[in-house]
Amino acid sequence: MIFIEILDLLGTFVFAVSGIRLAATKDMDWFGAYVIGLVTAIGGGTTRDLLLNVTPFWMEDPTYLIVTGVALLSIIIFRSRLLKMGITIFLFDTIGLGLFTVTGISKSLALGLPMWTSIVMGTITGTIGGVVRDIIINEVPLLFRKDIYAIACIAGGLVYFLCYQFEILSPFQELIAAIVVVATRLIAVKFHLQLPKLDLVSTGKNSKPSK
Amino acid sequence: MIFIEILDLLGTFVFAVSGIRLAATKDMDWFGAYVIGLVTAIGGGTTRDLLLNVTPFWMEDPTYLIVTGVALLSIIIFRSRLLKMGITIFLFDTIGLGLFTVTGISKSLALGLPMWTSIVMGTITGTIGGVVRDIIINEVPLLFRKDIYAIACIAGGLVYFLCYQFEILSPFQELIAAIVVVATRLIAVKFHLQLPKLDLVSTGKNSKPSK
Amino acid sequence: MIFIEILDLLGTFVFAVSGIRLAATKDMDWFGAYVIGLVTAIGGGTTRDLLLNVTPFWMEDPTYLIVTGVALLSIIIFRSRLLKMGITIFLFDTIGLGLFTVTGISKSLALGLPMWTSIVMGTITGTIGGVVRDIIINEVPLLFRKDIYAIACIAGGLVYFLCYQFEILSPFQELIAAIVVVATRLIAVKFHLQLPKLDLVSTGKNSKPSK
Repeated sequence: MIFIEILDLLGTFVFAVSGIRLAATKDMDWFGAYVIGLVTAIGGGTTRDLLLNVTPFWMEDPTYLIVTGVALLSIIIFRSRLLKMGITIFLFDTIGLGLFTVTGISKSLALGLPMWTSIVMGTITGTIGGVVRDIIINEVPLLFRKDIYAIACIAGGLVYFLCYQFEILSPFQELIAAIVVVATRLIAVKFHLQLPKLDLVSTGKNSKPSK
Repeated sequence: MIFIEILDLLGTFVFAVSGIRLAATKDMDWFGAYVIGLVTAIGGGTTRDLLLNVTPFWMEDPTYLIVTGVALLSIIIFRSRLLKMGITIFLFDTIGLGLFTVTGISKSLALGLPMWTSIVMGTITGTIGGVVRDIIINEVPLLFRKDIYAIACIAGGLVYFLCYQFEILSPFQELIAAIVVVATRLIAVKFHLQLPKLDLVSTGKNSKPSK
Repeated sequence: MIFIEILDLLGTFVFAVSGIRLAATKDMDWFGAYVIGLVTAIGGGTTRDLLLNVTPFWMEDPTYLIVTGVALLSIIIFRSRLLKMGITIFLFDTIGLGLFTVTGISKSLALGLPMWTSIVMGTITGTIGGVVRDIIINEVPLLFRKDIYAIACIAGGLVYFLCYQFEILSPFQELIAAIVVVATRLIAVKFHLQLPKLDLVSTGKNSKPSK
């Protein structure tokens, strides 16, 4: 369990770093960068907990706010070094995604939700933080335009379900599912796999929906 | 009741189609388009259920996620034909608005809320999906700039309230209120009725609030 | 208590005015401006109540919707005069911030939350309305880029906590904390105090995270 908790903190840290790095491109002050980092790190779990009608996890444990503060300080102090760690950060980001997804599924199942809702909750836990981050910094969410990201969560969720069917129990169930999330994302990035774009030629003329 | 359920599914389908069509103008992949369609279709009801402190309706019934998937598939397969059905889609969209509004009012009243809150909840059910959609695709929500849309929901809500006063019972109460929503919107579009713009000349110079 | 209620309504009124003024720069109609004003006024408290898992305050008392309506009418009728009252509005806006912050802290403590969570809830109550307003009108939230605003809330929260430690009881505790919020913000604006920007030179080239 301590291993899981360390990974959870590492995931939080790396999600926060990814948010703070984007905030830095948007002329934000330290407080703004902190909030964007926090939203990226806890936004998915908070959305899940609001939908599940339970108290958001970070309201009962200050660790997540502290870890985000550490992330901000690290970036301010070690920025050039942290920015060179692109691949390391990408790896932890992916591990965070896998772990957050599995946490979301387990928490939802424990509350008695059906498997398919739990997979949706796991995907929300892994991805919504980044979506809210992109909405706040005024970008169309990356999640909807590029990369196999949410699909990796769903793949992991389906494998979690299969483990359940074949009576592969905790913690192997969670471990296998998290590995599937990580592997799916790594393979997708390695081979530049992407979902097809939805290109409706005939609407191309009306590219501004506001008219 | 089966009639209502069919209309509910049709409303979901058409709201999803409207979201997916906008997503296609924003360079999104299939998954992004699916999520935008889903948010458009279930965003209003989800916001209502979060405010009402009950489990969001779609978490207990996979139908809405499936219908949105069918909407995406339909657009991918029949896109040119679907895009020509502009008026049909507009009609169903309006019927969906009426139905969603009435559903929101009824659910809120059943939970013991006062009439005025229930009308607000009905309006939220009918409109917030489109607002969240516009926020995600990075547009100023259409709802706030054009068309009698929310006003139609409020008109329907007031008639729902009048029916209640005159002891016109379910299902006629719901039916009449939904018809008022649909009629108000159709009349407004037909005669180009719009609310006045809020134009404060003296702030015109500071058109960028960010400075 | 009547004094507090009057300040609460004044705070709501002034927050609504600030939202409606921004809406007017975005080509919105009266309904859109009303909603933006409402979101600015009640968005923070609504977010707090959703996180606290209680019914949002405005759903049980129509006053807030009415006050926002009065704000819209006032702007339409007295616009030139209201727009000249810049400093008066700024003062009430700051008083509103102080009051909303203290309300948020008190409500959270009353529900049994720890002090640090309550300070976060107070800050959310005071600031999130403006953030949601900026997201809807498609701007990067001002909160994250300029001004000592959230910091004032946090300062007030810490003083609230100190009062608690030194057994300074209600209503002096609330009063002192609110005064600290107001004073911090006034001093920060007077002396142009700002938090440092987070400027990561090496990411400057990738200023568009969307690529």
